[in-house]
Amino acid sequence: MIKKVPIRFDYNNMMADYVGDCQGFTDKDIAAAKAITKKAFEEVKAGRGQGMMGWTELPTNQKEVVSDIIATAKEVRKNFDSFVVLGIGGSALGPMALFQALCHLHHNELPKSKRKAPKFYVEDNVDPERMVALLDVIDPKKTMFNVITKSGSTSETMTQYLIISKILKDALGKDFSSHVIATTSESKGNLIKIAKQEGFKTFFIPDGVGGRFSELCPVGLLPATVLGIDIKAFLAGAKFMDDRCKKPDATKNPALMAALLQFLAMKSGKNISVMMPYADSLKLMADWYCQLWGESLGKAIDLDGNKVFVGQTPVKALGVTDQHSQVQLYTEGPFDKVVTLISVDNYRETVSIPDGCADIPAVNFLCGHTMNELIDAECNATEYALTRSGRLNNRIYLNDVNAFSMGQLMFFFMLQTAYTGAFLHIDTFNQPGVEEGKNATYALLGRAGYEEKAKELNSKKKKTDNYII
Amino acid sequence: MIKKVPIRFDYNNMMADYVGDCQGFTDKDIAAAKAITKKAFEEVKAGRGQGMMGWTELPTNQKEVVSDIIATAKEVRKNFDSFVVLGIGGSALGPMALFQALCHLHHNELPKSKRKAPKFYVEDNVDPERMVALLDVIDPKKTMFNVITKSGSTSETMTQYLIISKILKDALGKDFSSHVIATTSESKGNLIKIAKQEGFKTFFIPDGVGGRFSELCPVGLLPATVLGIDIKAFLAGAKFMDDRCKKPDATKNPALMAALLQFLAMKSGKNISVMMPYADSLKLMADWYCQLWGESLGKAIDLDGNKVFVGQTPVKALGVTDQHSQVQLYTEGPFDKVVTLISVDNYRETVSIPDGCADIPAVNFLCGHTMNELIDAECNATEYALTRSGRLNNRIYLNDVNAFSMGQLMFFFMLQTAYTGAFLHIDTFNQPGVEEGKNATYALLGRAGYEEKAKELNSKKKKTDNYII
Repeated sequence: MIKKVPIRFDYNNMMADYVGDCQGFTDKDIAAAKAITKKAFEEVKAGRGQGMMGWTELPTNQKEVVSDIIATAKEVRKNFDSFVVLGIGGSALGPMALFQALCHLHHNELPKSKRKAPKFYVEDNVDPERMVALLDVIDPKKTMFNVITKSGSTSETMTQYLIISKILKDALGKDFSSHVIATTSESKGNLIKIAKQEGFKTFFIPDGVGGRFSELCPVGLLPATVLGIDIKAFLAGAKFMDDRCKKPDATKNPALMAALLQFLAMKSGKNISVMMPYADSLKLMADWYCQLWGESLGKAIDLDGNKVFVGQTPVKALGVTDQHSQVQLYTEGPFDKVVTLISVDNYRETVSIPDGCADIPAVNFLCGHTMNELIDAECNATEYALTRSGRLNNRIYLNDVNAFSMGQLMFFFMLQTAYTGAFLHIDTFNQPGVEEGKNATYALLGRAGYEEKAKELNSKKKKTDNYII
Repeated sequence: MIKKVPIRFDYNNMMADYVGDCQGFTDKDIAAAKAITKKAFEEVKAGRGQGMMGWTELPTNQKEVVSDIIATAKEVRKNFDSFVVLGIGGSALGPMALFQALCHLHHNELPKSKRKAPKFYVEDNVDPERMVALLDVIDPKKTMFNVITKSGSTSETMTQYLIISKILKDALGKDFSSHVIATTSESKGNLIKIAKQEGFKTFFIPDGVGGRFSELCPVGLLPATVLGIDIKAFLAGAKFMDDRCKKPDATKNPALMAALLQFLAMKSGKNISVMMPYADSLKLMADWYCQLWGESLGKAIDLDGNKVFVGQTPVKALGVTDQHSQVQLYTEGPFDKVVTLISVDNYRETVSIPDGCADIPAVNFLCGHTMNELIDAECNATEYALTRSGRLNNRIYLNDVNAFSMGQLMFFFMLQTAYTGAFLHIDTFNQPGVEEGKNATYALLGRAGYEEKAKELNSKKKKTDNYII
């Protein structure tokens, strides 16, 4: 049985009563936004399961898929020493976030007996040094490669696929196909074509699920299950959050309130959103959030075609580490950000600070406490320092870091993003700005059909050496 | 002999001729800033070696220290399987950045024969799960711990020290002291006191060198040498950059020009600085930059005591990875940032993309190229997309990633930061905003002398449950 403990969204320090009148909001502000809040809520509700909002149904519509994933993962765990995801962006960030949250922090360095799952790598770049480094630490013959790309035309992922499949073919001959699982679109694209030709095991990314909203589909579920993560609990956590967010009243719907407050903050000039978990296990969860938030909300035009150039720049930070790097700026710099702290009530370990340095009070006061108390005190202290200096902040409390709470947290952020996009009246689910760079890359590498773009690139004003020092 | 290839700072795309009139600067703008540029230059020049600018002399004043470090590191490499830095902020970010830049990307996973240096860990948090995870993968009896804190009163580092020294004492008795090296202030603080009591080997952080400017002193040099990094080449690179930045004419002084342009950008509303290296090896260099830039320039008051609340929020990104996460926002979102790309002319590996997928043109066009060509094309494409959409960007070219270029790069950023602080007329080298949080932590943990602060914390307005969902 899964213990269903809700995560809590705390926005006290977004409010004028706590953070001060200059920066904070009031109950009146929230009441005044009632109409736009209702509209945002209704739009997201109406969009559920439609178009690119297929992700809203993932917590409940994958029974058969989950069975297939569990059976497949069982075989992978039995037969392979390493599991490598070839993917980038939404195909990489979710798997990495869940891996770090729910596996040992030095998973790959553990001896096999302690690890209980294959070594795990996510290759989300095309740096040649990294590819060589990977091949130094895995044995391809004992490795399962999970190629993840919806379209099968992501240059980075397909480059990795070309390199790895050659190595596998050379090493294994025809048997190479048993070392590749393809996660891709069932209905279109190149990878499904290749998978059929080669006979790969496949999992499908539903049409209505975009990269950054794909963690709850096989993109995230297969790697997680291979790592021994309980995906049923993960999906149950997502559903639990979804149910909590079905209320139209923002004061009772955490994702809707979080979206409204962030929208109001953006309107008052806060163009930066800092995500600062107080747990090493959640460091990459902040990376996943950064894609979700940045790529969904950073848009040049709104739904009516007006140029708006909106978006809030997400920044990842880590507590307490970044207290010694970024908090000086956060408390004394411009009033341009909202800081979201994530704290953990119960870490999975408790470490006591033993006695010592009896003659040094500045050190000895720590003795007798636990690291748990220290990290908790530091989170409270940062919250206090931010609030005292009038900086908007809110806090998410996790009772535990487990599959159920991670399901809640990720679905919370997805819903918050969808609502915020609705407030901003933009298309939350497209990414037209990525195309320009892609096309330029194609042109620069001489891909057929991009001759015009190549001409354009060649005709742009040449850089002057005067501006290179 | 070190091959002295200069890094190049390219600011074409900061200029109106390239990025467009709305956003870019002109030669006129630069000429108009001549007086303030001269002033910033002269201030930094006059401050060299004074007060908290002792770091400017580090490239040349450490001959004896370097010999001691090399001799010590030789012993460590011979006698220990793991090397663990206990430190946070400036005591951690530099060592991590250089480790990642110049060692194997999976260093700790390599077999000992291939690694040629101890396994390496930097513990820069007080998460109890992380401490337990570390102890799962090291054998303390075969581990050297390098405790780094100038004052010896950094709670996080001293907490780790208390825990580790207890473990070492239990395992080794009196011999425990041979497993600890202290890097700290020679003249004051707690750690030097402890080191003398216990008989630790010590290295010293000069008085005029603050945490975020400490990578060129033993803070950075000892871990680097243990890892087999050529610190003489590293320091020579720093000196080489320093010499190039002794010219008062910004068009000939890369750090001064970079500072001026960033200052002008800040004045025109760009409150975000994105650091985006196109190399996995430089990912943590962006983290190091974020502390340097954020903590140095994020200040509430200027040198005359005026409230200014200045600072630019540094954001770390990774090419090409973050093209699939952040570039949508960078090209379509608000005009609120400057993006600095770092590219590498010669990666240390070359990987060809083999032939395949002959019937799929969208994939096959990649074949015959190298990963090196692909990552380079993608960097150019991102630069093109940013510029085309009118987004300020500049680029740093590294011929190679090696100790000499890293010395140049880090010293470039340190000088740029110092100049920018001078433009902003602030104290670049203090961090008063960090104190508030520290004091609150002390109070929360019941440290003697912080009773007043504890009272203040207890008297603050209690949170309401109405604002927690």
